[in-house]
Parts: sequence; C-alpha cells; structure tokens
Amino acid sequence: MKFDLPTAKNDLLEAYGRIQPHVHKTPVLSSRLIDEMAACKLYFKCENFQRMGAFKMRGATNAIMNLSPEQQSRGVVTHSSGNFAQALSLAAASLGVNAYIAMPSNAPEVKKSAVRTYGGNITLCEPTAEARERTADRISRETGATFIHPSNDYEVILGQGTSGLELMQEYPNLDAVFVPVGGGGLIAGVAIAVSCFSEECKIFGAEPEGADDAFRSLKSGNIELNEKPDTIADGLRTNLGDINFPIIRELVEEIVLVPDREIIEAMRLIFERMKIVVEPSAAIALAALLRQRDKFKGQKVGIMLSGGNVDLSKLPFNGL
Amino acid sequence: MKFDLPTAKNDLLEAYGRIQPHVHKTPVLSSRLIDEMAACKLYFKCENFQRMGAFKMRGATNAIMNLSPEQQSRGVVTHSSGNFAQALSLAAASLGVNAYIAMPSNAPEVKKSAVRTYGGNITLCEPTAEARERTADRISRETGATFIHPSNDYEVILGQGTSGLELMQEYPNLDAVFVPVGGGGLIAGVAIAVSCFSEECKIFGAEPEGADDAFRSLKSGNIELNEKPDTIADGLRTNLGDINFPIIRELVEEIVLVPDREIIEAMRLIFERMKIVVEPSAAIALAALLRQRDKFKGQKVGIMLSGGNVDLSKLPFNGL
Repeated sequence: MKFDLPTAKNDLLEAYGRIQPHVHKTPVLSSRLIDEMAACKLYFKCENFQRMGAFKMRGATNAIMNLSPEQQSRGVVTHSSGNFAQALSLAAASLGVNAYIAMPSNAPEVKKSAVRTYGGNITLCEPTAEARERTADRISRETGATFIHPSNDYEVILGQGTSGLELMQEYPNLDAVFVPVGGGGLIAGVAIAVSCFSEECKIFGAEPEGADDAFRSLKSGNIELNEKPDTIADGLRTNLGDINFPIIRELVEEIVLVPDREIIEAMRLIFERMKIVVEPSAAIALAALLRQRDKFKGQKVGIMLSGGNVDLSKLPFNGL
Repeated sequence: MKFDLPTAKNDLLEAYGRIQPHVHKTPVLSSRLIDEMAACKLYFKCENFQRMGAFKMRGATNAIMNLSPEQQSRGVVTHSSGNFAQALSLAAASLGVNAYIAMPSNAPEVKKSAVRTYGGNITLCEPTAEARERTADRISRETGATFIHPSNDYEVILGQGTSGLELMQEYPNLDAVFVPVGGGGLIAGVAIAVSCFSEECKIFGAEPEGADDAFRSLKSGNIELNEKPDTIADGLRTNLGDINFPIIRELVEEIVLVPDREIIEAMRLIFERMKIVVEPSAAIALAALLRQRDKFKGQKVGIMLSGGNVDLSKLPFNGL
C-alpha cells in the first residue's frame, strides 16, 4: 500500500462525518495529581466511555458504513475473541446489518455472551489462528458476508483514527500523544489524525514487554511476530499487519516497552485518582509516559485510554 | 433547631458562592443501558469526581470558610476515620488552616496515610466513640481549634447540599432524587436544595438494611441508633443527629432499605456500564431506585453518587 498523508486526511474526515451519528464523542479528562507525578500536563482521551466500552466501535462502524448497500445486505464477518467481535456485533446491529463471528471454542463464556447480547452470530471453531481464519472464510463464502479484519483494514484504521481527530480538534497544541499498540489499527489511525493536524506533535506507541512485536518491527523494518505473547494487556497480544505497518513506520516516533507491573500500577493510579475504569491495554499508555517522564517536563501530552472492558472479578490489584 | 426553608435557601446560596472556587462542579452522567433496566431516565450526579473523591469536601470547605479569621487561625478539629477526616484535612490545607484529627488507633494504615497526605495532624486514641470525642475535646481545649462534626453541623449540611443545588440547576425538572443516608448530612443538605428549587421533586433516602437507623427514626419520630451496624457500605454506619434529623423528617419522602447484595450488584453495574469507580455507600442510591422501579416508570430521577473512595484490593465482585 502506498501511503499519502493528504489523501488520508480527506479519508479520515470523511470517515468521521460518516460515523459521528453512531459513536460517542468521548470526553477528555485530566488529573491534577497525576500531572504532578508526571511533571507535565496530561490529556486523557476516554474511549473507555465509548459505546461498547472501547474505541473499536469506531473502526467497526466505519468499515460497515463504507460497504455498498448490497454488501451490507449480506452481512459482515470477522474472527476475534475480544473487543472487536463485540464492536462489530453492536455496530452491525445498530446499522441493521448481520454480523458473523468466528470464535475459538475455548473463549470465555463472558465474551461469548457479550457478543450474543450485541446480536452477533457466533460460529465456534478450534482455538488456533488457522482454524479461525478458515472458519471466517467459510462463513464468508456461504453467506456472502464481507470479511472485516480487526486491525489491518484501512477503513477500520480510519475509524479508530477519529478518536485522535477529536483529541486534536479539542487540544491542537499537544506536544506528544501516547497510544497503546496491539494489532496496530488504533495507533496507525491516531498517527494519521495527529499528523494531519499538527507538524510538531509526536506519536509514541506503548507496548508490553511480553508482546513487543511492533518494537522489533520498527527496528528491523519488517513485520515481526509475537511467538508466545505473555502480558496482562490481553488486547495487545496481536501482531501488526501489512496495511497499518507502513503508516506506523512513517509516522510513529518510538515504541516504548512497558513491563506488566508498571501497567498494573498505572491502571491502579487511574482507578484511584481519576475514579474511572480502564483495562490494562489502556493504562499502558500512561505507564509508557511515566517511564519517560524526564523527556516531557512541562509539555502537553495526550494519553489514549483505549477502553474499559475488564473482568471486575479478576482485577489485578491484590498484590499491590 | 427551628427549620425555615426560605432562610435555608439563602444560606445555601451563600454557602455555594463561598465554596465554589474551592470545589469541583461535578458532571452529571447517564447510561442508556441502565435507563433501560430502570425503565426511567436517570441522572447520576458524580461526586466520586469531587476533590478527595467524595461530596464531604463541600461540607468541610463550607464549615471552615464560615469561621472567623481568628477562629481559622487556631485551626479545626474533628473525629472520624473515614472520608470526613480526609476532607477536613484537604479543605483546611487548601485554605491555609490547621486540621487536627482524632482517629481510633485501629484505623487502617491506608486511611491514616491518606489524612497525612492531605496535611492533617493525627492524634490516635482508643477505638471507642467516647475516647474519640474526649480526644477531640482535649485537642480543642489545648489548641483553641473549632470542633466540626462530620454530619450534624448546619454549615456542613449546607455545604453537602450544594451538590443537590448543582444537580437541580442543571436538571430542574427531576421527579425524584435518591440520596444515600449515613450520618444524615448529605441527605439533609440535598433535601434543602431540592425543596428550594422544585415543589414536585421528591427526596428518597437509601439506607442499608444492616444500618437502618434513619428508617426507624422516621417511623418513631425520635433519633434511633444503630446498635451493631453491619453493612458493606462503610460510610453509612453512623447515626443521625439533632440538627439534620428535623430537616430530614420534614423534607424526605421515604427511606428505602437495601440489602448488601443489591448494593454490590448496583456497584458492579456502575463499574461495568458507566466505567466509573464508586464506593458501596454511593451505589446504594441506584440500588434503592432499582428496588422501587415500578413507582418511577418514565420519570426523571437523580441519583446521588456520593463518592468513589473504595479499597481496590478488596472489591466485592468475586462472588458475583
């Protein structure tokens, strides 16, 4: 894919116009106490308040709305056991479109039931990446449903980027933005949004030490994979793709690796001081900034709190 | 005390003008999904986002500001092991006043250290109500500090009431407001605010089954005590006082008793669906409304989320 920023800016604004009636404009919060700890001014973009509890609602909505009416009538399909399955189900239901989800048979019951609550049609398959792809393929052939990838899809990337667009429209003078890196859809989209609206603002990725594929990919210049991802940030265990990697490579300043313990500490700080619920995959953005606080003294920094879908009966705060 | 509503309205507006620069105007949130469950429209007043994490900041600030400069120079003293100790410490520090706190020696270390963080001077005493009062008395005699009661103090009541004032100014057409009942300061203040701004809006108290002193007091017409309070809502174990009881008796429609299990369920609902952190003593207001939902179909109901100071390593969600 050839990446061109002015074209991407147009695409992004178009995507935003399209999805705006269907997603929340989320608030930007701040915390005097955390600012003091960070020695800079932080702007938390609260996608945990997004519909369905995460930014993925944006990308799913945009990808579906970008289809022709004829395509929409045949539905959409994806493979995911996480937030994107729920997002695609809810976005599809809101738009009157069928959603088919290929899910590993060992996915937690709570995730299956969330997808069903949002109206998604689940097909269970073996718990391997291969089986999931094969199942999604088969559903697509049988129903004519369009396959939508959770992160490596240009329309999904643009949809996720609208969170960055809202942040930059409200705070155009940010010096830096920290964004969690999982499959790469969110950071690629936010990087486009930030780059379109500011020449100074730098984009930093936050990635778990135990799933450092993006960090290694930027070093090597090729897409590197997580062999055995091991991190509490369950939304960040996935790999980059060939559509989002070129964007990340061009626009992202640096990927900051964060150990799980610091992810949990940042999560606790956000719960305790901001009184809001975030998932580990979101808290990592604050943890990355705190790791590098010396670089950002007195600056204005955006923190993308990507979502708040966390199992409340398994919060990781007991050891702290 | 003789209670007169027009006078109270003036006092309330005066208190609000006084404390406004020192407290947050907290947001009012809503949740489509919880509205569906409740079959009415709910307006959550988020005092969990207040400074120090609870409404008590309002009352403490007002009580201190109401003192003469000479009194302020000698400091303030209270006995409390909970939010009010922290609120008085922070409010005093913000206003350049000394705060002395009589705390039982067995109070959790986390509460002692919170008071110290906010600048309060702790004097430990035996863990009995008598010893606490005696200690506060002694400090008052020795330092000249003015004693401020956490809930049975007219200026504290007015300060707490400003949360209701903000809610009614933003949503003047509410049909009812649900407020947690502990020592009675919050509900007395909110009842004044609601009654000043609406003749139709009814005030309901939410009280734990295991600390039902206000429920029994309204029945008997006398202040009844909790002999052995037993509830997860640790902020609501205290008794009413002779200053707030007449106000509650005159202005509150009904006290709704709630079992702990429903407090926890409401708390989980707020965490999961609204993505905000509240303490059990706040979630009880939603639980009370849900208990009585048949009475409020299609109505507009305010829910006072009084605070969000909860021990994250002991969240009660494991059994659900």
